Amino acid sequence: MANDIHDKIILAHGGGGQLSDDLIRNKILTRLTNKTLEKLGDSASLSLDSTDICFTTDSYVVKPLFFNGGDIGKLSVCGTANDLAMAGARPLFLSLALIIETGLEMKTLEKILDSIATEARENNIQVVTGDTKTVETGSADKIFINTAGIGIKIKTANLGMNRIKSGDKIIINGTIGDHGMTIISQRKGIEFESQLKTDCACLAPLSCKLLEEVEGVKFMRDPTRGGAAVALNDIAKGSGLNIEIDQQKIPVNRTVQAAADVLGFDVLNIANEGKFIAVVAPEDAQKALDICKAHPLGKDASIFGEVTDSDEAPIVEMKTEIGGRRIVQIPYGRQLPRIC
Amino acid sequence: MANDIHDKIILAHGGGGQLSDDLIRNKILTRLTNKTLEKLGDSASLSLDSTDICFTTDSYVVKPLFFNGGDIGKLSVCGTANDLAMAGARPLFLSLALIIETGLEMKTLEKILDSIATEARENNIQVVTGDTKTVETGSADKIFINTAGIGIKIKTANLGMNRIKSGDKIIINGTIGDHGMTIISQRKGIEFESQLKTDCACLAPLSCKLLEEVEGVKFMRDPTRGGAAVALNDIAKGSGLNIEIDQQKIPVNRTVQAAADVLGFDVLNIANEGKFIAVVAPEDAQKALDICKAHPLGKDASIFGEVTDSDEAPIVEMKTEIGGRRIVQIPYGRQLPRIC
Repeated sequence: MANDIHDKIILAHGGGGQLSDDLIRNKILTRLTNKTLEKLGDSASLSLDSTDICFTTDSYVVKPLFFNGGDIGKLSVCGTANDLAMAGARPLFLSLALIIETGLEMKTLEKILDSIATEARENNIQVVTGDTKTVETGSADKIFINTAGIGIKIKTANLGMNRIKSGDKIIINGTIGDHGMTIISQRKGIEFESQLKTDCACLAPLSCKLLEEVEGVKFMRDPTRGGAAVALNDIAKGSGLNIEIDQQKIPVNRTVQAAADVLGFDVLNIANEGKFIAVVAPEDAQKALDICKAHPLGKDASIFGEVTDSDEAPIVEMKTEIGGRRIVQIPYGRQLPRIC
Repeated sequence: MANDIHDKIILAHGGGGQLSDDLIRNKILTRLTNKTLEKLGDSASLSLDSTDICFTTDSYVVKPLFFNGGDIGKLSVCGTANDLAMAGARPLFLSLALIIETGLEMKTLEKILDSIATEARENNIQVVTGDTKTVETGSADKIFINTAGIGIKIKTANLGMNRIKSGDKIIINGTIGDHGMTIISQRKGIEFESQLKTDCACLAPLSCKLLEEVEGVKFMRDPTRGGAAVALNDIAKGSGLNIEIDQQKIPVNRTVQAAADVLGFDVLNIANEGKFIAVVAPEDAQKALDICKAHPLGKDASIFGEVTDSDEAPIVEMKTEIGGRRIVQIPYGRQLPRIC
């Protein structure tokens, strides 16, 4: 056997033959093993605790593959788990589908798989089914990952835009813009790059706690692509109500703000990968904030806005630090391609 | 707005902003709409009829995107649904994740989405959640699709390699090699290309019927990548028993055989996308065959092999048409890259 079969991915690793089998058994199964996955069946056979589930999917095409505080592997676990968490579910099972460009270093793949294994294990998530495809050099960019996820609905969760009312408070669990500015700064090689770190994290430990303990949590969304601006506008549009936010109360790391200023980005449009925006009934807002602040995922949490009545088309308005007001719009097209 | 925003995919279509939203609402939701998908939440919220489910995923990187009898869209519904069907489940829900190279013609995307919609509708499958990513020209090959699927276990199904015994019969529901030879012939532009047609189909209508009506169905697998050779070897390995097949009883279209001969392929290694291999107790084999033959998906079905005792490492052996015997091995590496 030539060395390159072991050092780099070749087309045959995705061909369904012996080399595919070797890759799956020796590189993937060894890291992600559990009773369901080790059967290597066409499908994972699962016995759930409930018939009320959430189901979601995301593909990950982030560039570069490795960045300060995370990589495409960690992202592909957290991103999908967070979509389940935001829907009021506890993430339990993931599928893992790899599209690999031939020539990818086996060591790079192993590092990504290690990262997936660690993140899944730490969050009690099992990778139960998967797929591996290879494409010719030039037909993909190193590796793309898709994960789909299944979570069980939290019984006490009652989330819906239709529950949102004027007077509800808007909470965020920490600083915004960290993930997006880390990626873009690393790509551009700007000087404060090393001080930036993605916020990429599985939100379920905190979101599940909130949904179990605070009845007044009415809606949650993770402000990923498009940033807080898109999440807030979605909430305004979906509820038919205005949202007023206070710039002074939006947590932003100083380095993230500096990088955004230098590169001409609005932090409200920058992607986050470990943040949620929650809409909470006013009487429960302080309790929710306290729970967040007591948790490692929410120590910088802040009540930064409020839902208000809308006479016309609903808008998101921001009281700026210098006392003005401006409408927060959703970006028309791309801000940052391949951010996740 | 420039024309190319409407005619071709640009990066902004995957950016999470207004253009992403337009693409999702106007191109995807209009075709695939159902009560769950139209909520466009982070996750699909599902209430199942049972807690016993199957879960699977596959990415589709087939080249060319369109081929005689199908396209990447149809494949991405059938392939994933078939993995659920083979595990003894009725496929119900799909996720749909697109990775699109910028510059893809919008019409091409629309054609693929139409195909997904048709195939899903005809098989009572709902696309309930999705994701759209765009990457730069040269970072992908037109479009890659991932689908994950959830199916509900059929109560009467009892599938497992451990049930397989010496004397069990091996059934296939029709001709082998059609999908793979269609793709490869189309790529190479060989002359009988137009006479070849993929077998791509959702197997669930037939597999569910078999599993509900024939107790003796012990194992099912769809011989996709790697072909019947890999599926049969998996069964031998998993059961610890030999498999003897009879070349004369393997259904093969004449044109497929001719194309395979010209191009130097063994039809046993060629991918299928609408076939299953079933292991059935001898007393139920005829009943299973009759059900297959009475169904549009099984009119060319055949009992083409039998499970036998194994003294040493289990093998798959074929009685050839000219009366010899040969071992059917699994291909070491690739036979046909990007076949699905």
